[in-house]
Formats: sequence, structure tokens, C-alpha cells
Amino acid sequence: MDRILQRIKAIILDMDGVIYRGNQPIEGAARAVAFLRGLGKKVIFLTNNSENSRSFYVQKLRQMGIPVGENDVITSGQVAADFIKRRDPQAKVFVIGGRGLVEEIAQAELEIVSPERANYVVVGIDQALTYEKLKDGLQALLSGARFIATNPDRVYPTEHGFLPGAGAIVAALERSSGRKPDVIIGKPSPHMVSYVLKKFGLKPSTTAIIGDQIETDIKAGKRAGLLTILVLSGVATEVDVKKVRGTKNAPDCVLGSLAEVVL
Amino acid sequence: MDRILQRIKAIILDMDGVIYRGNQPIEGAARAVAFLRGLGKKVIFLTNNSENSRSFYVQKLRQMGIPVGENDVITSGQVAADFIKRRDPQAKVFVIGGRGLVEEIAQAELEIVSPERANYVVVGIDQALTYEKLKDGLQALLSGARFIATNPDRVYPTEHGFLPGAGAIVAALERSSGRKPDVIIGKPSPHMVSYVLKKFGLKPSTTAIIGDQIETDIKAGKRAGLLTILVLSGVATEVDVKKVRGTKNAPDCVLGSLAEVVL
Repeated sequence: MDRILQRIKAIILDMDGVIYRGNQPIEGAARAVAFLRGLGKKVIFLTNNSENSRSFYVQKLRQMGIPVGENDVITSGQVAADFIKRRDPQAKVFVIGGRGLVEEIAQAELEIVSPERANYVVVGIDQALTYEKLKDGLQALLSGARFIATNPDRVYPTEHGFLPGAGAIVAALERSSGRKPDVIIGKPSPHMVSYVLKKFGLKPSTTAIIGDQIETDIKAGKRAGLLTILVLSGVATEVDVKKVRGTKNAPDCVLGSLAEVVL
Repeated sequence: MDRILQRIKAIILDMDGVIYRGNQPIEGAARAVAFLRGLGKKVIFLTNNSENSRSFYVQKLRQMGIPVGENDVITSGQVAADFIKRRDPQAKVFVIGGRGLVEEIAQAELEIVSPERANYVVVGIDQALTYEKLKDGLQALLSGARFIATNPDRVYPTEHGFLPGAGAIVAALERSSGRKPDVIIGKPSPHMVSYVLKKFGLKPSTTAIIGDQIETDIKAGKRAGLLTILVLSGVATEVDVKKVRGTKNAPDCVLGSLAEVVL
């Protein structure tokens, strides 16, 4: 592994399925992060999930023995807020999403408004979703607001099984409005990786992404020209790896889990 | 119109956009129903909406000057309940839907259960939808329960604009479960028209359907071999009529509104 990582200066780590599954840390992940840092690599933590704030992930990682600051954690909510802010600093945003997404929108000094005043609708996972919110989102979309999805995930895995992901809520709004999102921020779309490269001044040729899903992490990495490493400690299995062998979505490298980077 | 209707013994009337828009009666509709009955036609009232019970529609029609009994009102919830009952009298049903749908399932003496015990998931419009219900529905679907949609409507029109329809909730479950409904009961699928023909012992050749939507009412009528009459008092416009001219979905007859049947 050392040789492969020699030219790599920064490593983007997907969190769910790589560092933990739900609240369960994955064996050896903390040690692997310390090892990579010991080699002088910059480690950046990424999640497609927009439900929680960066401070939530900082706490979570610290509890798992991984010291980290907010600067090194990137969520799709934060990238969504940045995306809107750069296009329209005066944007009026109606949010369907968790507290973390609302915080990111507010931190970017975007105005959070009721649906009839919105020119942007931002949709992420929302465990407090109601029919009323769908109705409000539909109203704003039918009035012409831009449609931003934080991520396309159909489900997300927890210790208690699969829960509906942001993609499910996006689908309800797609079907009722007859519109697709104007932008999807989360992997596999290129926005999150571009954001990381720009924020830390990285080059694709010296950056790697490590993730547990071919359809999101590896695809996003390939699109951006990063070194891509798949771990089999989350969603993807060896069967999935065989399916993409020889295609443009084949990962450059496959590990059983993050712990194996030390080998 | 008299000549066209001469061979017709029964007329299936879609309600929304034909008899009323939301709570607003459409001018001349009550008089038209009385006229058709005066000609000796059986009039049956149909809705794709599963939110309310038959008794709700009986009240609503009576308030609009149309005397009617529960027997002559057909909702997609009732047809869904009948569909399940005939296939599996012991079915255990998890319901995402309004009070009317719950009532119909219960009236058919089907057992309404929690998601982990369900072998059927029935989904209709649910103005009390929550994330929790989506989560429960997903759980049942991932465990292999049959997936029944009362109707595919993307939206439904009210005085206050368009609200998300059953189709929006179905789409959220489709996206998260990776499954399509096993059965869609409402128009344009043939189930509701078949149910009406059987219930009243009608023949397609002597039955007409009058509706305001080409994609649901006219399509369902065409599939069943009924005489199809489109009214322009609801969703469809003259532009829509032109689009289907010469195709298999062209209505046999187009009226400005139901009031014109007396002409």
C-alpha cells in the first residue's frame, strides 16, 4: 500500500461504512487514520449525509479515537450552502432537511424563508418530514424555485436496518412537481470532491478517495481523476467489484477495510 | 348528445373536475346528473382518491344537490380492499393513507397490522404522512410485503393549488425500496372500471365514462372498451385534446362541461 500512496498527499475518507457503521466503529479505522497522518498525508472526512452538522461528526470521530477539527469534515449540506451562496448571495431558501442542513444554510448567511418567498428549495434527509413539508416544497417548486438535492442516497444503513434516504424525499418532490433536481450536490456528482480540492488547494493527481460504495464514492473519485480505493467494510461486496472489473468504474485498489492501509 | 347516449345504460362519472373542483360545484353538474337519470341511465360516481370514505362523498354530492347512496360511489380505497380480500382473505395490511382508506380496509375485514407483521403495504394519499410512516413502509417492503398503490396521481387540485398526490408517496417508497408497486388500483389501470362493471352487471358496450383527464379517465375507459367522454372543466385542455387526436387515447366525445350533456 505504501508504494501506491507514495505520490498521494491527501486522502478523502468517506465515513459511513469506512470508519463506522451507524454508531459502531470499524475495527482498526482509528489506527489507520493515525498511520496515514504519520506518513504526512492530509486526511479529510466526507459524508453525503446532510442531516447533521460538522460539529456532530467532530464529536463522533473524537469518541472513536480520531482527533479532528471542523475544518477537516465536509458534509453535503455545507457544500450545498456554499454552492447556493456562490451563485446567489441573496438567495431565499426553503429547507426540507435535518438540523445540520439548516445550520449550514444559516452559517452561509443565506436567508431561510417560507415556501412562498423561496427561490431555492434544498432537500436532504429529514427525519421530521411531514406531508405539510412536501406540500410546501411542491408549492415552491411549482412557483419556479431552483431544486437542490443534498444527495441522492436511496437509503442509509443503521444498526436497525435501512432507513429512507434523502433520495426518497427527492423522489416524492420529483414525482409531484414533474421536475428533476437542478443540482444534486452529493457523490457521485462532482460537487463535493471539487469543493474539497479547492478548499485545501489539492491536485487530483495527488489525492485519493476511500469509500465503501462504487456507485457514489468510486464514481465521484473517477470523475475527478483521483486515486480510488474501495473498502469492503460497508455496502459494496466482492460481487460488486467483479461486476465493474474492466469498466471505467473499477476502483484502482480494493481493501477488506481501512485497517489494511497499514499493510 | 342524446343519439350518442342512446345505447348507453350506465355512466361512470369521475368526480373531481367533473362535478366539482375542490369544494366548488361545477355549474350545471347537478342538473346534468338529474337529466341522465331522467333518461333512465344508471349513474355511478368514481374517484381515484382514497383519502375519504364513501359516506364522505355521499354527503358532499348531496350538499351539491345530487341525491346518491353509498352503493353508487366507488373509491380506489374500496377497490384496493376488495382486490386484496379476493386474493388473500387472511392478508395482514400495513396502511399508509387517510381515514377513508383505513375504513375501507377494515370494512373488508382485513387485518390492519404494524409493519413487521404485514404481508401487504397499501399506499394512498396521506395528509398525515411522516418520515416514520415511510420508514415503516420501507421496512415492510424490504421484508417482502406486496406493494399496492391505491392510485398513481402525482398531484391533486384544490382551491389552494396543487397538493402532492398518492403518487408522490408511492415514489418515495419506490426510490427507497428499489421496487415498483405490484399493483396500482386507480385509473388508468383497469381495476376500478372492471370492479364497476362486475358490481353492477354492466357490459362495456353499453357503459360510458365521463372524466376530465385523458391520462387517467379516458385511458381507463378505452382499455375497458367503454364510450369515453372528456370534459374540459378540470385538468385537460383543448391543447391536450389536439395532442391525442388520431391516437388510441383520443376521447370519443369532448364537452365543455358536464352541463352540456343536456344539449
